[in-house]
Amino acid sequence: MWGMARSRSTKPASLTGPKLREASPSKSRRPPLAGAVMRIELDRHRGALPFFQQIRAYIRDAVVEGSLAPGIRLPPERQLATMLGVSRATVMRAYQELVSDGLIEAAPSRGTVVARLDEKPEVGAPLPPGGDRSWMLGLPPLTVLGSDAGLLREIVGTLGRDDVISFATSAPPEDLIPVAEIGRALDEVLAEQGGRALSYCPVDGAPELRDVLVERMRAAGALASGDSVIVLSGSTQGLALASRVLVEPGDEVVVEAPTYIGTVQTFELGHARLIGVPVDADGIRTDALEDVLARRRIRLMVLQPNFHNPTGATLSPARRERVLWLARRYGVPILEDDAYGALYHDPPAPTSLKQLDRHGMVIYLSSFSKTLAPGLRVAFMCAPEPVVGRISLAKQFSDLNTNMLGQAVAARLLSSGGYDANLVRLRSAARDRMRLLLSELDRMPDVLERDLDPRGGLHVWCRLRVGDAQTAAASSAKAGVAILSGMAFYPRGMQGTAGRDRIRLSLPVSDSESIAEGSRRLQGALRHLPRRVEPRAARRLSVVV
Amino acid sequence: MWGMARSRSTKPASLTGPKLREASPSKSRRPPLAGAVMRIELDRHRGALPFFQQIRAYIRDAVVEGSLAPGIRLPPERQLATMLGVSRATVMRAYQELVSDGLIEAAPSRGTVVARLDEKPEVGAPLPPGGDRSWMLGLPPLTVLGSDAGLLREIVGTLGRDDVISFATSAPPEDLIPVAEIGRALDEVLAEQGGRALSYCPVDGAPELRDVLVERMRAAGALASGDSVIVLSGSTQGLALASRVLVEPGDEVVVEAPTYIGTVQTFELGHARLIGVPVDADGIRTDALEDVLARRRIRLMVLQPNFHNPTGATLSPARRERVLWLARRYGVPILEDDAYGALYHDPPAPTSLKQLDRHGMVIYLSSFSKTLAPGLRVAFMCAPEPVVGRISLAKQFSDLNTNMLGQAVAARLLSSGGYDANLVRLRSAARDRMRLLLSELDRMPDVLERDLDPRGGLHVWCRLRVGDAQTAAASSAKAGVAILSGMAFYPRGMQGTAGRDRIRLSLPVSDSESIAEGSRRLQGALRHLPRRVEPRAARRLSVVV
Repeated sequence: MWGMARSRSTKPASLTGPKLREASPSKSRRPPLAGAVMRIELDRHRGALPFFQQIRAYIRDAVVEGSLAPGIRLPPERQLATMLGVSRATVMRAYQELVSDGLIEAAPSRGTVVARLDEKPEVGAPLPPGGDRSWMLGLPPLTVLGSDAGLLREIVGTLGRDDVISFATSAPPEDLIPVAEIGRALDEVLAEQGGRALSYCPVDGAPELRDVLVERMRAAGALASGDSVIVLSGSTQGLALASRVLVEPGDEVVVEAPTYIGTVQTFELGHARLIGVPVDADGIRTDALEDVLARRRIRLMVLQPNFHNPTGATLSPARRERVLWLARRYGVPILEDDAYGALYHDPPAPTSLKQLDRHGMVIYLSSFSKTLAPGLRVAFMCAPEPVVGRISLAKQFSDLNTNMLGQAVAARLLSSGGYDANLVRLRSAARDRMRLLLSELDRMPDVLERDLDPRGGLHVWCRLRVGDAQTAAASSAKAGVAILSGMAFYPRGMQGTAGRDRIRLSLPVSDSESIAEGSRRLQGALRHLPRRVEPRAARRLSVVV
Repeated sequence: MWGMARSRSTKPASLTGPKLREASPSKSRRPPLAGAVMRIELDRHRGALPFFQQIRAYIRDAVVEGSLAPGIRLPPERQLATMLGVSRATVMRAYQELVSDGLIEAAPSRGTVVARLDEKPEVGAPLPPGGDRSWMLGLPPLTVLGSDAGLLREIVGTLGRDDVISFATSAPPEDLIPVAEIGRALDEVLAEQGGRALSYCPVDGAPELRDVLVERMRAAGALASGDSVIVLSGSTQGLALASRVLVEPGDEVVVEAPTYIGTVQTFELGHARLIGVPVDADGIRTDALEDVLARRRIRLMVLQPNFHNPTGATLSPARRERVLWLARRYGVPILEDDAYGALYHDPPAPTSLKQLDRHGMVIYLSSFSKTLAPGLRVAFMCAPEPVVGRISLAKQFSDLNTNMLGQAVAARLLSSGGYDANLVRLRSAARDRMRLLLSELDRMPDVLERDLDPRGGLHVWCRLRVGDAQTAAASSAKAGVAILSGMAFYPRGMQGTAGRDRIRLSLPVSDSESIAEGSRRLQGALRHLPRRVEPRAARRLSVVV
């Protein structure tokens, strides 16, 4: 390398590559005029491309193919316009686009010329060592994701580690996944349908699943038609697609504060501006919500009325009516994330906003991940048809369609009653495990307290009386129990303050003995942390922008 | 409604709602000064939020909660700065943010005051009928998707329609999907793993599948480590995530022209600017590619070197080396979409760019949709670790993880040899069906011709001698055979001209008799179209911006 002759180029030297074309050297101050351009034939038929685009395309091709060499002068705009029988503005526009393409350049006293490729090196030679990895350094930043970007990934990663009891994951207990029934459903569908059961399916979902979903939504009293249900690859996909098609970058979106981590991250990735509205024991504070809706142009509300993640709160009936009224009053739709509604611990079942909505204000999102099996990756949305149409288009470019096996399992268990029978078991197990967890937590009032006892779902939201959220999570991890810092559940504008005194505990996915052992480890880990001294402001409810 | 009393508000009338708070009427020209602000306590610990954010948050909360009523005057910046012991610039910044939040406003001679909520209506009353659906009219436009946005959805929708023979879908024949083996794999995994087989899995994929993929990539001579493989929910997801994390809006991306419809649509949805480089019988034209790379700042090349969709072309060995050299020379990575490489009709197997790449320039994407079963929705990417890390983060916000059943099937069939045995059957069937289709097409030289006979894959790219692409597709559909207009395979800048004389035919997914019958219908449909008169320019290869 060191003895190499230096090329005239300032770019990395190259010796062996062929010269692709000879540049026409321009000796005179007025470069040669392009004859080639004279031969442009415009397509004047109806439906043809606009003239400026045709002219641009012609010149572009000629430059790229080399019939217009660098330095060649193009005809003046007025002259070319006359030649082609178009307006001067048309030619001007074509030239402007070509300039911005870097293909031609306008210089005073020289006219418009084909750009010189001063930057173009000769090619074919060995590259300087190490110089070819730099493209990875130039990858676009993902800063919008924030410091907790990998959190969900890490949570899921704690599953299946035998040395850690995880109070960090929201999933049904693995021993309650109805494996035998799922296996039977799979056998049946393969026997009946053969290869068709494993082919592509419509973007909106397998008809057998959509039909039963529409039927159930209607039976529950919700507005639903054949075109208002779409099958999704997990609730996460629903949030991701909604953030794409319902919200434009910079739009303001109301979320509960705190809310599901995936909601925060997905919408912030879509460059939405999240407005956090506080939650109390009766769910989102409708007075604060009203203030926000009245003052700002909110595009969407993302709410979890039932067994809210992370607080466990359930929206009171009066507030449900209020939220729906506010949605209509201010013309702001609600994305109702109802991942946990079916997991009430005792009857009666809570009502979804969708069931109450008579005016098409609610986009309902639910999933089989918490009620059947997360690994199926099947969820669905029930929403006004224009919304479903857009979600469907976006899904086409996201994963084309949801996996067929998971859809077949869900459809068959819904139809057979197996799904509902399993829900009864799940509810009862969730209730028992929740009671056990709460009674364990009651034994550690020195380190933890809580605002409410959840009536459904999988989460307990605790206030720390010692340490802070991050040290608590770190100490717990060391002690072999995974919990989540409360700070991750708030939108970006609030991160760093809100949730600093909170942790979220989820029911573990493995056997219930692990609740006692996990609680013991947790208490051991927290006991050594210093007692918390609260700044006065920390307990105030606040709207977060 | 008509007899209702009119409220003073200019907003829709409301009668019954409670007044939430009384605004403090400002009688004097200088409104009352806010005492509440005096009580701001700044957190001065290390790691606390910046002072301006603390001040902003304090005032924001006070306004939203009502302790600072509309019209109340805030202290002048200098005065508040002195009170709090911070710089005036700090207070100024806090005030500026609050102004842009719409919470306070600065008016000459009045000082800075809490914003009046003139826009805020009273709430609680019935809404005007019909007035509450307008939010759907305000949905963000999806114009970037263009007129063919729903095309893939429609193509998939033609599957399973008994009255239509589809030459439009790329999928393995349904009768060659190894249903029995897939069923056996499912039974095994459920028996062995129980509920764990249906729980969440790591974002990057089930370890058993990733391990066998890494092993196979290495055995093929590709650069691959444990952290360089990620399982995806179909190739479409790979394209979608790559367009998100490798490309920023406005970046230029090279694609073959023509190329896969999903590539065009996915990257255009990500606001990339696609530069189409022409393809001939030896694959992408490297001379034209070189010109583009030398002149422009290209962020990524998306290429299909093997059995290119739609043309069927395979990149020649010399051009492969050239493409890799160009990638290094210009620091532009290659996303190699190898959906069809395993479907060569006769040995030897083609080499992927990834196998040749010794410098981390190739992001390899392949799928089990064409080689096993589309309904599994399992694909994978093998790429340098920084790329996989980013793709993994983006996948977390897209669908969290790929379905477990599909992953288990793929892992088991790869390990058992069942996958390879099935590939042998698929190749032979694809070869036989392709021969049959080509011989049928040879019988209609009056309406169709082609540039090359594909040596693998599922597609034939035909040039029309009659009509144009769109009328040909429409007439064929009427005759009961689905084909695709060539125009959809080009980037936006070229749409409307390129591909106007082209159609793509795919091998049908059902039995081979349908090839003869489908061809008969096609010929019947095309025969009546007027003979094509080619404008001279239409046959020229061109780089498309």
